[in-house]
Amino acid sequence: MDNLVFGIRPVAEAIEAGRQIEKIYMRKGADGQLISELRDLCFRHRIRIQEVPIEKLNHLTRGNHQGVVAQIAAIDYVELSDILERVPEDETPLIVVLDGVTDVRNFGAIARSAECAGAHGLIVPVKNGAPVNADALKTSAGALTRIPVCRVGSIRNTIKALQAEGMQAVAATEKSRTLLYDADLRKPTLLVMGNEETGISKEVLKTCDQQVAIPMIGSIGSLNVSAAAAVLLFEVMRQRIHD
Amino acid sequence: MDNLVFGIRPVAEAIEAGRQIEKIYMRKGADGQLISELRDLCFRHRIRIQEVPIEKLNHLTRGNHQGVVAQIAAIDYVELSDILERVPEDETPLIVVLDGVTDVRNFGAIARSAECAGAHGLIVPVKNGAPVNADALKTSAGALTRIPVCRVGSIRNTIKALQAEGMQAVAATEKSRTLLYDADLRKPTLLVMGNEETGISKEVLKTCDQQVAIPMIGSIGSLNVSAAAAVLLFEVMRQRIHD
Repeated sequence: MDNLVFGIRPVAEAIEAGRQIEKIYMRKGADGQLISELRDLCFRHRIRIQEVPIEKLNHLTRGNHQGVVAQIAAIDYVELSDILERVPEDETPLIVVLDGVTDVRNFGAIARSAECAGAHGLIVPVKNGAPVNADALKTSAGALTRIPVCRVGSIRNTIKALQAEGMQAVAATEKSRTLLYDADLRKPTLLVMGNEETGISKEVLKTCDQQVAIPMIGSIGSLNVSAAAAVLLFEVMRQRIHD
Repeated sequence: MDNLVFGIRPVAEAIEAGRQIEKIYMRKGADGQLISELRDLCFRHRIRIQEVPIEKLNHLTRGNHQGVVAQIAAIDYVELSDILERVPEDETPLIVVLDGVTDVRNFGAIARSAECAGAHGLIVPVKNGAPVNADALKTSAGALTRIPVCRVGSIRNTIKALQAEGMQAVAATEKSRTLLYDADLRKPTLLVMGNEETGISKEVLKTCDQQVAIPMIGSIGSLNVSAAAAVLLFEVMRQRIHD
């Protein structure tokens, strides 16, 4: 794996210098004053700590890691406010929210479709998201370096904050009786997509203004999440440029 | 790799017994009377022969392969006439034609979306298609065992034959100025998708009745072929159930 920083102080310094960290691998059961300070620092910067056996750390680096290895992010994450500020004045905001899409290729594919459909940003959770790695970048055909991506601690609270800014949250779920064609997607919209297996979490679903389904004819009855995202994104496009 | 038959006579017998062969690996430069007869047999049954170094064959099997290893198909391919005959009387035919989609996951993903959108079959070329293997089946979420797949020697001639049956061939290409919304997809339709890099081949494009583009806003300017297929398939759905 490339782009690693290891050792307690070097990792703390990288965070304080504003370097964007994808996540931190920490030895299971690590403790002590410095580790405790590092945990606080990660909490304040909303950086995910994954506890792993020491063998994993030894596998990542031969250097003196002191129980801590940080993986530098492959893209520059942005703040939520940045996404909104970057929406051109003559465009209606369209943001894709991924509530637990964990497959790297699905994530990359959604980023590519979102960029092609003119979406203004992607919102992903700090936990339970796909890692933004080389595979994700490749599948996105470079979209992940073009479309702003924001990591948030709570998808639910973020949706609420954006609703307060006048955006509607539209959840994609097979269980809805409302078809996507019957939602007004010309309004400022958050498209909320869920996990590959379990869909959108209950608490996020409850927060959404509307739930829409893509009609299904066959016997499988559910699209891959990246196919569903493409269908929804381009239904937004159709309504905005064509209806 | 599973499902192999090897040796000249066993392979010939498998073909004559009607077993469906994905493709045949043959030692480069193999000749002789039996090999020549086997080549004829493959030609008549439209089975692809891939010439490979002998090391490849030795790697596939430790048995006495005599320069010939056949991979049995993972699905039951059907005849073109079967696809048409199986369309229920109250449904309008919708068939997806893949002109050179080579990525196994894209192929599986398109099969899944096609099944979900109620398409009646997939048509793929004997050459330059994705192998229908375990990865394709998995990505398709089982769709490849439910939607009929037909392999044809010539995509162009097959399109012509289906046009003669009253179907329109609609080619997906970014270069068209006509948007998909402006095509009448309520008619019996072949949706023609092209290769990941090069798109639909010229001779196939010329045969199509109409070329349609999905509108693009971003700077990448092209969707992944499986995302594009999903958008098109569900535009057919929208027009047929909603317009």
